[in-house]
Amino acid sequence: MLKTKIKRPIIIFGFIFVEKNYVSYKSVIITIGDELLIGQTIDTNSAKLAQLLNQTGINLIKRIAIADEREAIITALDEYIPLVDLIILTGGLGPTADDITKSTLLQYFKGKLVLNERVQQHIVELFAHRRRPILQKNLDQALVPDNCKVLMNKMGTAPGMWFEQKNCIIISLPGVPFEMETIAREEVFPVLRERFEDEYILHKTLICMGKGESVLAHRIEDIEASLPDTISLSYLPSPGMVKLRLTTKGKKLQELQDNLDHYANLIETRLEKAIAASEDIAPEEIIIRQLKKHNLTLGTAESCSGGYIAHLLTNVPGCSDVFKGGLVTYSNNSKINILKVKKETINTVGAVSKETVIQMAENARVLLGVDIAVSVSGILGPGGATDQKPVGLVWIGLSNKHKTIAKEFRFVYDRIRNKEMTAYTVFNMIRLSILQYYNKPSSAKL
Amino acid sequence: MLKTKIKRPIIIFGFIFVEKNYVSYKSVIITIGDELLIGQTIDTNSAKLAQLLNQTGINLIKRIAIADEREAIITALDEYIPLVDLIILTGGLGPTADDITKSTLLQYFKGKLVLNERVQQHIVELFAHRRRPILQKNLDQALVPDNCKVLMNKMGTAPGMWFEQKNCIIISLPGVPFEMETIAREEVFPVLRERFEDEYILHKTLICMGKGESVLAHRIEDIEASLPDTISLSYLPSPGMVKLRLTTKGKKLQELQDNLDHYANLIETRLEKAIAASEDIAPEEIIIRQLKKHNLTLGTAESCSGGYIAHLLTNVPGCSDVFKGGLVTYSNNSKINILKVKKETINTVGAVSKETVIQMAENARVLLGVDIAVSVSGILGPGGATDQKPVGLVWIGLSNKHKTIAKEFRFVYDRIRNKEMTAYTVFNMIRLSILQYYNKPSSAKL
Repeated sequence: MLKTKIKRPIIIFGFIFVEKNYVSYKSVIITIGDELLIGQTIDTNSAKLAQLLNQTGINLIKRIAIADEREAIITALDEYIPLVDLIILTGGLGPTADDITKSTLLQYFKGKLVLNERVQQHIVELFAHRRRPILQKNLDQALVPDNCKVLMNKMGTAPGMWFEQKNCIIISLPGVPFEMETIAREEVFPVLRERFEDEYILHKTLICMGKGESVLAHRIEDIEASLPDTISLSYLPSPGMVKLRLTTKGKKLQELQDNLDHYANLIETRLEKAIAASEDIAPEEIIIRQLKKHNLTLGTAESCSGGYIAHLLTNVPGCSDVFKGGLVTYSNNSKINILKVKKETINTVGAVSKETVIQMAENARVLLGVDIAVSVSGILGPGGATDQKPVGLVWIGLSNKHKTIAKEFRFVYDRIRNKEMTAYTVFNMIRLSILQYYNKPSSAKL
Repeated sequence: MLKTKIKRPIIIFGFIFVEKNYVSYKSVIITIGDELLIGQTIDTNSAKLAQLLNQTGINLIKRIAIADEREAIITALDEYIPLVDLIILTGGLGPTADDITKSTLLQYFKGKLVLNERVQQHIVELFAHRRRPILQKNLDQALVPDNCKVLMNKMGTAPGMWFEQKNCIIISLPGVPFEMETIAREEVFPVLRERFEDEYILHKTLICMGKGESVLAHRIEDIEASLPDTISLSYLPSPGMVKLRLTTKGKKLQELQDNLDHYANLIETRLEKAIAASEDIAPEEIIIRQLKKHNLTLGTAESCSGGYIAHLLTNVPGCSDVFKGGLVTYSNNSKINILKVKKETINTVGAVSKETVIQMAENARVLLGVDIAVSVSGILGPGGATDQKPVGLVWIGLSNKHKTIAKEFRFVYDRIRNKEMTAYTVFNMIRLSILQYYNKPSSAKL
């Protein structure tokens, strides 16, 4: 199955980059669907599969998205079967007429359709459980090519298929994300791991909050310059944070791990409070973990962010230990009636003001009976601006038993991104307040 | 710029599919970044660009994602420049050492770096506005190849670049999504539209809620069979709904439009109440529009959905006319103290029960002063299940002045998808209750 030994010096602009000499398995992901080429669907399947391939040490050299067209599928198979060890296709396996992947693969691999009784029984049971009528279209999904290994789809009706040709494995999975992911995790990758596992690819990610990419790069310039050529560093800016990712590959796990940890520690020590976590977790998870670590409870009082902060926090399993509840006081009346914000405050300085978020945070802390309450009021756009209060103006309040603070922010993006920036800014304020009031600076990170 | 005239009959399994004879411009999107190949980032840029290309009538034949590697970029350019009229690259333009797109394009198109004073001035102003120190790395982003048209990036520091070679336009944009999108919308597509616009591609999307893909397909089987070969129909299942998309292409706009409307109307009439909207809008937008149309206000009382329903509703600009607020009563105490759910109800039948969601919905309706209140209490997993109450059990309540109802659902997915399914099920219940109590069935759709 080995197809590549790479050792290729590339000389550019006077610098020499020498890639390492290693053996690696190569793969390609092919997603199939017109909806991907007109932008109706965001492709999350490729990212999931890429993660799984990465964890298995299989190099993903390319992802491509093509139309629901027989020719496009055949051309892609012709191109990549000789080049790679593994091709994963997703999409086009549904019961309707626009789904042509199965018939194309049937033709390509010269098989014939046979009834798979296990799949048929599963489909019948699934429809019985959902109390929906079963149609011939659905039953036809139990017809599969006779020259593939069938991959059971316990979440849906379309089974996956595993073909092999010319030392290349070709796997076809349905496009519905949770069906695809379940088959991949349970039926595909355990087998691929046995066949392919050979070399380790290790990453270490540091999450930085509150500082921009170039400031971070400037502060660790000398560390970056001192990295051995077996370790690479990437900067990945995303809303409210920058991820620093260190990557290395090789065969000796402990040595790779130690080396990676050494440089990660140098960076963490240098960046101090800017480091929010030393693994790749979401900001909301960082907050839930910090709260648990210090045995603190949290509540929210949201106006413009509309429940988004509570939503993100409650995505984290087990959050109920520390997140006790929230209020989405989207109207002035709900601020006054439920959160007891003073009517005169709203009449004089307005709902988007320091005074309002202070009352929201303090009253929410009492009403919800929590250690820390945060509050948000702002104008996310596109409408709602006044002469004094532009779109993007957001006040954030935070109250704990020691102090209530309020800060003004001006975000410059569209409604959805302003909402995101608001949530991540709130998370960073919670994080820094825990550091200040409940922690020693030296144990900043999780 | 014309490269293709397609007329290609494909004969498969005894059926003949004849593709239409039309002239079309071809394009490819190339996204650059290791994070795409290890699954750390979900690629939303390609979907945005695909939408813009589609609206401009430029055929996107393929999307590919490749590594931050000089060779991979050069190979892709070598492959596609002779094949297509337009290549859009995104990513790899940042200020840090892992960003190599600019230097690779410089080398590929044999240019030399020159200082662009407009870009330099913009970068200086941006840092002054953000009150952040400016570094040499940032200033270096004003150095651009002398043989490209510079595309101003008003949202960030890395400018886009527009090259032309051998009748192919090659455009390089930054990877940060809102920077990419702003340059694309303001600097790129207005020019492409003038250069390329030639043929119309029309879509019409019908949103169905509450029925599965195969049931829908079965009910319109005869209409689908009667579609002329200039119109194609796709089924796109997504959480809580199925989108039916009709597509046609050609030069005569009015004729295309009339033809599409004719078949869309046939399908809408057949599917009746299952049709939630006759354009491609999100379920939350359907609900906000229905509420506005009937002059109704809405409030939410969420336990397990944790603010997600309020969050989705408040993503819709102008929602404050009808959405008045919500409560995220994540703990028993907050249900009792804020929503006045009876303590004995929770002690006897539990928080996840018909009785609790009825009280939550009725009390939220009064507390928030709204026409319709919905409530949710359930167990989304992975923890929290008991013998009687499995993961996935969700009770949903809805109260209006006519009636309060409660329904039990069992979702079978993971935490995040169970949350999604809960929200979309709530939206469908709101939609159907508006139909039942405030509307005539014949005007079901928006």
